Amino acid sequence: MSNDKLPTRSENYSEWYNQLIQKAELADYAPVRGCMVVRPYGWALWENIQASLDRRFKATGHQNAAFPLLIPKSFLEKEKEHVEGFSPELAVVTIGGGAELEEPLVVRPTSETIIGYMYSKWIKSYRDLPVLINQWGNVVRWEMRTRLFLRTLEFYWQEGHTAHATSEEAQAETKRMLDVYTRFAVDEAAVPVIPGRKSATEKFAGAINSFSIEAMMGDTKALQAGTSHFLGQNFAKAFNIQYLDVNNEQQYCWTTSWGVSTRFIGAIIMTHGDDQGLVLPPKLAPIQIVIVPIYKNDKERETVMPVVEHISQQLHDFRIKVDDRTEVTPGFKFNDWELRGVPIRIEIGPKDVEKNSIMVARRDIPGREGKQILSQESLPGAIAELLTEMHASLYDRARDFRDSHIYDPADYNELKQVVENGWAYSWWCGDPACEAKVKEDTKATTRCIPLEQPGGQGKCIVCGKDASEKVYFAKAY
Amino acid sequence: MSNDKLPTRSENYSEWYNQLIQKAELADYAPVRGCMVVRPYGWALWENIQASLDRRFKATGHQNAAFPLLIPKSFLEKEKEHVEGFSPELAVVTIGGGAELEEPLVVRPTSETIIGYMYSKWIKSYRDLPVLINQWGNVVRWEMRTRLFLRTLEFYWQEGHTAHATSEEAQAETKRMLDVYTRFAVDEAAVPVIPGRKSATEKFAGAINSFSIEAMMGDTKALQAGTSHFLGQNFAKAFNIQYLDVNNEQQYCWTTSWGVSTRFIGAIIMTHGDDQGLVLPPKLAPIQIVIVPIYKNDKERETVMPVVEHISQQLHDFRIKVDDRTEVTPGFKFNDWELRGVPIRIEIGPKDVEKNSIMVARRDIPGREGKQILSQESLPGAIAELLTEMHASLYDRARDFRDSHIYDPADYNELKQVVENGWAYSWWCGDPACEAKVKEDTKATTRCIPLEQPGGQGKCIVCGKDASEKVYFAKAY
Repeated sequence: MSNDKLPTRSENYSEWYNQLIQKAELADYAPVRGCMVVRPYGWALWENIQASLDRRFKATGHQNAAFPLLIPKSFLEKEKEHVEGFSPELAVVTIGGGAELEEPLVVRPTSETIIGYMYSKWIKSYRDLPVLINQWGNVVRWEMRTRLFLRTLEFYWQEGHTAHATSEEAQAETKRMLDVYTRFAVDEAAVPVIPGRKSATEKFAGAINSFSIEAMMGDTKALQAGTSHFLGQNFAKAFNIQYLDVNNEQQYCWTTSWGVSTRFIGAIIMTHGDDQGLVLPPKLAPIQIVIVPIYKNDKERETVMPVVEHISQQLHDFRIKVDDRTEVTPGFKFNDWELRGVPIRIEIGPKDVEKNSIMVARRDIPGREGKQILSQESLPGAIAELLTEMHASLYDRARDFRDSHIYDPADYNELKQVVENGWAYSWWCGDPACEAKVKEDTKATTRCIPLEQPGGQGKCIVCGKDASEKVYFAKAY
Repeated sequence: MSNDKLPTRSENYSEWYNQLIQKAELADYAPVRGCMVVRPYGWALWENIQASLDRRFKATGHQNAAFPLLIPKSFLEKEKEHVEGFSPELAVVTIGGGAELEEPLVVRPTSETIIGYMYSKWIKSYRDLPVLINQWGNVVRWEMRTRLFLRTLEFYWQEGHTAHATSEEAQAETKRMLDVYTRFAVDEAAVPVIPGRKSATEKFAGAINSFSIEAMMGDTKALQAGTSHFLGQNFAKAFNIQYLDVNNEQQYCWTTSWGVSTRFIGAIIMTHGDDQGLVLPPKLAPIQIVIVPIYKNDKERETVMPVVEHISQQLHDFRIKVDDRTEVTPGFKFNDWELRGVPIRIEIGPKDVEKNSIMVARRDIPGREGKQILSQESLPGAIAELLTEMHASLYDRARDFRDSHIYDPADYNELKQVVENGWAYSWWCGDPACEAKVKEDTKATTRCIPLEQPGGQGKCIVCGKDASEKVYFAKAY
């Protein structure tokens, strides 16, 4: 860890983010433009995200598989909107084994096409449906402006791809996975999100309808933290994914796709982080508890260390680390683990040993207020409670912050003001022209049309025409 | 599953292998030459392999991270042997975002170079050492002759990369990981392996010494199932990986790398499989137990199903599947699960319900001999014992088969004969010319110089000169 001070969020939010990631050793810049190296601490966080999502995918009947990285370029061209959307972002392999390839291969930017091709081979009858497959992997999109975790040339994600007999089933799957993402964000990451439908302009290239979960970052910008797409029969027709129905007639399947990526780490950093560094949600933190032994000499060390050892045994069901470095001071260690966002710090010194107690500091409440003394007998129950409480408290704080920065502007002028430091929640007629005007005037885009609507009718905040849905306008990552 | 009959191993081993993989739905051919799709059943097996290795890596102090897929071509050229070894196999990205790249990027065939570059940035002092990092991911090597799992253009693997202060530490790490691989093969996959050193001809491009675990397949060919390389200071010098030692002097690090890939699935198939299909080792099998309910009518069904449900509850700590398909017969199900290599099949019919018993069939012992009746009260203990016994039995059978096909030929003529259907274990002087002669005459190569040596001296089986080590010669995958 570097000792240079982290800029505060109010000084420079963007630099706070970039430097924090490097100082906390979550990730580093790779020698290839726009690519990142995810360092062990960052990858451990991603592994926890993966495990938690994977459990939810399997519980909803999905299985994992692996499809090739390299896709014939012609595959992408089979779905018109899809190729238009992804062509500008492709990395293309033109040489293999020393020779020029007859057909160039693209490094997958997403896998609807090659998976569609395989599904057309595998699916014969209605008995083979639904096909519910997910893939964990890496994809490459040739982005021009990149940010660690938020937008990198290569990123890590999962992409679910399902095929169904009916439109209704596929739409239900799309919503089910959006709900899995919502539950994950809320229950594991303590990140409040708003699930909703994307506008036609913002939807996935090749989808009938896209849905997303949208989160508000600490600078009030929006971040799309997961997406779920209803693809209709677009890819089924492009790749001839057909099945024989109960009446022995050929039918096209209905397909979906859905994904969450390493971008979610960016969401965690910017939802919970503070001027001291990361604040990691307890259920996902790679280290949940750090124990810092406090001693001034060998004699004190001999008193303290057996208790440290004993307590770390008591807490072995948690992800725990004992920081027994001798070359740095306890004060240095406190700052270090604060920077890295470890939820709970336990300090144990000779006095604590005498009193049979420990000093516990919560990462989310700075200074004295976040400290409390626990008896050793209360472990591990008291720590489990504290982590649960901290999860709830992180969620509430983030939700309150978000809700206090969502506005219902009275007119278009007010909308232009509020999106400078918050989101506007407004009636919209659905016309892409109105959406485009907001973007041009303010750089804010429609984030999502939330699934939960107030009902009734209103007037479009831009053009004043009748509107039946409300939408969030916000600047976004 | 297709109903076409699988060729027997003696009819056509190669076709038995290829067809089995497809029929058991482990993998399929991708539309890109030499690439594979790992289907859910195959991927579930890989996930179990991953989990088991990952636990062992973490227990030996390693952490996971992720480094970029795309590597500047110039990086490979920094280590002379490395670039010579890998150049013919590279997939090269020359176009990104619609424009020709100034410097082409190779899709990683292995990551020593880019990881070396990052280590040179991260490592400053002896306090930063050792660095013990592993990566799970995909790599691409432009192979000309491919086989599912054994040799594919893209494959999945883990690659460990470590940096140390001394040669001794790095060498100890190389051996430690070879031992982790040996323990994994034996204890989890029931695959007997011989750990040993590769000859200079067979070692990794850029290593000082390579080690491997070698396994004998059902056709007596050898398969290299994992490798561990001592890289000396070759990559440290190429990428300037230096540290300040305790005397404040700059020193080059000593590095290692080690890997196991989806090739290991090929080893499992060809070590344990029989003419009926896969035989999966119990600790890694995606499904350990399948329950097939047997009934002739609705009334019997009503008798049987509650017991099936009850027993699957009793066995919930195992990976269990109830095959309740109604469109196929029990006989079809038996064949299907035999093909897929599920270790234990439980049959429950009305008579079993009456007698409070279940019929259990072991996959590794065909026909009546593998069947036994267990009382319901003995569950789950009896099943756990059976799986343990089956693991031991699979291992013993494979080891006996191997040992009965290892020969100690009296002279070179006999060596030429024995490598047609087995391995030769012979003294070798170490001269690459003798190794080359064997390869030219028989297509057999040196597999490894086993760590356990008989000691003493002998005469080279090829040239008759003094030899101090014995080596395995065998045809290999």
